[in-house]
Amino acid sequence: MRKLPENSNRVKVKINGEDYFLKGSASQEYIKKVASYVDEKFRLISKLHPELGRVDLAVLTAIQIADEYFTLKAEYEEFLKLFDEEKKDKR
Amino acid sequence: MRKLPENSNRVKVKINGEDYFLKGSASQEYIKKVASYVDEKFRLISKLHPELGRVDLAVLTAIQIADEYFTLKAEYEEFLKLFDEEKKDKR
Repeated sequence: MRKLPENSNRVKVKINGEDYFLKGSASQEYIKKVASYVDEKFRLISKLHPELGRVDLAVLTAIQIADEYFTLKAEYEEFLKLFDEEKKDKR
Repeated sequence: MRKLPENSNRVKVKINGEDYFLKGSASQEYIKKVASYVDEKFRLISKLHPELGRVDLAVLTAIQIADEYFTLKAEYEEFLKLFDEEKKDKR
């Protein structure tokens, strides 16, 4: 959520029961979508690791989402590679 | 980092100065890459918001990474859409 002093939205969201005020240039709808995704992961990890404190749970949530980011990135890059090879073959 | 009892790696990583032991089916190299990405974001957000506690910083780190995930996802989906349209046009 990049901070932009002008033309930015301030949205109240809940992550694992706590309120957060997020500021961003993105739409309120998008900011809420992102927050509810994090909330969902946080709750899931809390259930899997009830022994952990909130800091560790939040860190594991960040790691889980980063894992999904890199998995998607690898898939996208693989697709782009195949796409470029296909284009070359057609020349 | 999906947990797999068998054939899983246990890797010690540092996130904002704290040690975490991550278990996953992915390679140690991959797990370390993901962790260092989270560590980098966490440190950046800590600098931007020195007034915040560790829980809030970790939650904001998760939100930041989720934002990047959705941004990449939208770009990928847009690319796939254009790719499909191009294919249709060629028929």
